Amino acid sequence: MPDYDFSGPRLFLEPTIERDVAIEATVPQANYLLNVLRLDEGAAILVFNGRDGEWRAQLRREGRKRLFLVPTKHLRDQMPLPDLHYCFAPLKSARLDYTVQKAVEMGAGLLQPVQTQHTQAPRFNVERAKANAVEACEQCGVLAVPEVRDIVKLDRLLAGWDAARTLVFCDERAGAEPPLATLKPLADRPIGLLVGPEGGFSAAEREMLLALPFVRAISLGPRILRADTAAVAALAVLQAAAGDWPRS
Amino acid sequence: MPDYDFSGPRLFLEPTIERDVAIEATVPQANYLLNVLRLDEGAAILVFNGRDGEWRAQLRREGRKRLFLVPTKHLRDQMPLPDLHYCFAPLKSARLDYTVQKAVEMGAGLLQPVQTQHTQAPRFNVERAKANAVEACEQCGVLAVPEVRDIVKLDRLLAGWDAARTLVFCDERAGAEPPLATLKPLADRPIGLLVGPEGGFSAAEREMLLALPFVRAISLGPRILRADTAAVAALAVLQAAAGDWPRS
Repeated sequence: MPDYDFSGPRLFLEPTIERDVAIEATVPQANYLLNVLRLDEGAAILVFNGRDGEWRAQLRREGRKRLFLVPTKHLRDQMPLPDLHYCFAPLKSARLDYTVQKAVEMGAGLLQPVQTQHTQAPRFNVERAKANAVEACEQCGVLAVPEVRDIVKLDRLLAGWDAARTLVFCDERAGAEPPLATLKPLADRPIGLLVGPEGGFSAAEREMLLALPFVRAISLGPRILRADTAAVAALAVLQAAAGDWPRS
Repeated sequence: MPDYDFSGPRLFLEPTIERDVAIEATVPQANYLLNVLRLDEGAAILVFNGRDGEWRAQLRREGRKRLFLVPTKHLRDQMPLPDLHYCFAPLKSARLDYTVQKAVEMGAGLLQPVQTQHTQAPRFNVERAKANAVEACEQCGVLAVPEVRDIVKLDRLLAGWDAARTLVFCDERAGAEPPLATLKPLADRPIGLLVGPEGGFSAAEREMLLALPFVRAISLGPRILRADTAAVAALAVLQAAAGDWPRS
């Protein structure tokens, strides 16, 4: 963890970030900084763009309405996101925002919503999810914004799946493998994680998954987990065993 | 996981559960079953009491108001809860309900709220937390209700701590140990897990914790986690490495 005040305010910017090269804030960003946070000329915030690491930037006003952000100090190098494709059956609205936020906190590199037989939410608002992902990155200090894809049906996801990427799915039924033993050999390799909907996968879906050579089933313990709990739990054991959490 | 319909409705009862020995439902329970769920004479639900495992029980009405539950079939044996004391800085109201629910889902044996320097919520409603724990058990099929203790200050918790129980705390600072390597040697032993408030522990609190021989610090990865995310993530790696998730 960095040793400066890491907690924000932090903004995602599109343009290249270079020392002393002023970037104009968007209208919503200017409103947020000036009117909501009540910051003023000379105040410092954190900025990132997913390519140039994290910078401190100072506010510089021009006229009443225009606000510029002037990068002053490069604080952190760009770290790539884990090569982790997080595939999930989307929940409805507010709970979906939560899903995206947790996925960002837990270091997913790509968010892939999946339509399964028991998926609650028939439609997936990808623009909203992208906005949520940016906001989650700003709040958590994650310096790269994960890609967010549009929803696909499970069979199509699997048909197009790169077999070099192991797909781990969380299986509630008996016989699913011990998670850590299954995940450890996948360390530093491309991984996909599939978390099903509240109702779980159908028998046909399970059969389809288990027949594929690139799929591994893991157990998440002897208790029923809600979908949002399962998501964080699965991501945690995956990152701890095979991802970017410290490993001895 | 059981192969019957495990998903409820499920009720927690106080009395001993024996085949064909009718138990009278409480007024709120009768209201819930008859008026909310609209079940009737002969309908079957699941019941447990934390001692006698899980049973199927049939509804039997007597008169207009009295409802009895008649256990008919013993479905699952009583499983003890993991010997895991989950210590947490309570969040406010609705988020606290969520904390209790997640702790039950993740198999905590005892819930110990802790007052730390940066704890948000000055008061802890232990009766409400106990009710939440019962409800979470009913919803998740956890057959033993974890004990819920009243809030204590961190220094008092540590002063009274049984040194035979390792206390694992989640440390955001550099130097915290790789979680799985730290947790694995604790398999099947009494464990405590301490998750701090949103603001983290103060420098003095960290110093106090790290000076104790029964304390281990673990990292939860390179990203900032919200307190509720940290709770599930920490419980997941703990159960997977040293608790009751399947281990090879």
